[in-house]
Amino acid sequence: MSRILTGIQATGTPHLGNILGALLPGIELANQANNEAFFFIANLHSLTAIKDPEVISNNTYSVAAAWLAFGLDTNKNTFYRQSDLPEVCELMWHLNCFTPFPMLANAHSFKDKSETLADVNAGLFTYPVLMAADILLYDSDYVPVGKDQRQHLEMARDMATAFNHQYGDLLVVPEGKYDERVMIVPGTDGRKMSKSYNNFINIFLDEKPLKKQVMSIITDSLALEDPKDPDTCNVFGLYKLVAEANEVSEMRKKYQVGGFGYGHAKKALLEVLIDSYKTPRDEFNRWMNDKGALDEQLALGAEKARKVGTAALGRVRNALGY
Amino acid sequence: MSRILTGIQATGTPHLGNILGALLPGIELANQANNEAFFFIANLHSLTAIKDPEVISNNTYSVAAAWLAFGLDTNKNTFYRQSDLPEVCELMWHLNCFTPFPMLANAHSFKDKSETLADVNAGLFTYPVLMAADILLYDSDYVPVGKDQRQHLEMARDMATAFNHQYGDLLVVPEGKYDERVMIVPGTDGRKMSKSYNNFINIFLDEKPLKKQVMSIITDSLALEDPKDPDTCNVFGLYKLVAEANEVSEMRKKYQVGGFGYGHAKKALLEVLIDSYKTPRDEFNRWMNDKGALDEQLALGAEKARKVGTAALGRVRNALGY
Repeated sequence: MSRILTGIQATGTPHLGNILGALLPGIELANQANNEAFFFIANLHSLTAIKDPEVISNNTYSVAAAWLAFGLDTNKNTFYRQSDLPEVCELMWHLNCFTPFPMLANAHSFKDKSETLADVNAGLFTYPVLMAADILLYDSDYVPVGKDQRQHLEMARDMATAFNHQYGDLLVVPEGKYDERVMIVPGTDGRKMSKSYNNFINIFLDEKPLKKQVMSIITDSLALEDPKDPDTCNVFGLYKLVAEANEVSEMRKKYQVGGFGYGHAKKALLEVLIDSYKTPRDEFNRWMNDKGALDEQLALGAEKARKVGTAALGRVRNALGY
Repeated sequence: MSRILTGIQATGTPHLGNILGALLPGIELANQANNEAFFFIANLHSLTAIKDPEVISNNTYSVAAAWLAFGLDTNKNTFYRQSDLPEVCELMWHLNCFTPFPMLANAHSFKDKSETLADVNAGLFTYPVLMAADILLYDSDYVPVGKDQRQHLEMARDMATAFNHQYGDLLVVPEGKYDERVMIVPGTDGRKMSKSYNNFINIFLDEKPLKKQVMSIITDSLALEDPKDPDTCNVFGLYKLVAEANEVSEMRKKYQVGGFGYGHAKKALLEVLIDSYKTPRDEFNRWMNDKGALDEQLALGAEKARKVGTAALGRVRNALGY
């Protein structure tokens, strides 16, 4: 049994890009028989960028509701809110003392962010140490990471190794799990779907505003009767990611034959979104209308996480001589 | 009632310089009727420099024993081990997110240390944030600080102000208490007494090694019969800090008249150390031979500290939207 750990950024309701690119692959990984997943909503990390308490709180709930709506098995896995385990902050302090200052100063991500953000705070600078504490507190075996987080994972490995070098093998040195297949989900303007481009589709919206988002997908100006190239069309680009294979090849033909307009394609996309995500849409709304149940679910996760976390932290405290 | 907070570095058994310069003034302050003191042994801060668990543990015990031996009133005041309140690490994370990176990068102390130390770690860099968390977690009104800590206290004030600006007045903005009278205690070689110069006198030693330390005080080579200048003599410099006023003026005369050797002066100093510190010497040994009692005493302090700390942290968590 391998323990997989993933931190989920609490940047708001997951959009279709997040769902296809991270949420569904994460749930698939978690449900594999030989894996056990620790998934947490990284609301402590959010504070480096978001200071509004309502935004942090709402983001946490909507992320939790989305993962639960898509059927994350919380009996088999451990699903919790990062801030419910302040133990991670204590481990972070200890790891700080094993993290060379230049290692953090030379991190790509910090360099990039410190050039573009107005608020360059010490939380942003020590972000990788909190991330390492998240990983090491729970004896994680594998951490699935994208290219942008690769350096951070290497740092976590370095910290664990430096600590173990001093005190013996007390921390599990995690392995990165690098998925070479990167799924690019196009947004409504054809660029990668992203909250910051405001080109996303939120499948949890009510039908009317969801329709508005789908209708806003940018297409070219070919007439209804013209044959069209599905492979350059943003509508088809999304459709092929969510529809069944036979539906996709049918629509491909319609594009190529002509007499099939972008309005038709958008309507078909809207239908498939509503149909295929019926259960998650219902479940998401059910959770969001019962925050108490969400809190309860996350509290159960925190309890499970605490058992592992306090054991690891106990080993660390003991080694440090406190 | 004002709350005074002081962190005590866990660098080893307090020597005479520490006792006269910090411990006794601290206890005097704590015993004033209108003050309530929070004193803690800063063993988390120690980890930035000391990685040996036995050294950290022993240093903590000997610091605790020394303060108790000199009669710190632990009923009136709160005396605890920093690491027993990991809540401080959580508050530190939150404050990190309100601490501009350049503020830390420009700190004098970090610049100085990063030029001289081999191990420049992220703990050293974020040291002032942990210090601020120590202060702010306990709603401290006053923090007695020396010149070298003045900038750190200003940072703690800045962090509290930035936080309050965002969320309302939740944190007490501490005032520095700057004592202009700086007591310089000379070491055995005439330089300021300091562990790093290895020129200190440890009054808790047994008589024989204590005598050896006193005898090692460097003097000039005037003969027994020569008149001597008490004000340039290291032995007299220490004697006048620990003997009664009448004893001091008597010895001053003996120096000036001549026929009084440095050996006599050293013998008199040793006697006054042993006599005037009889109770603390006995008490120190009693505590050091009963670590269980020390642990118990510190646990009681931690319990008292926790009541204040969890209340402040609760206000913070609530404001942040966790």
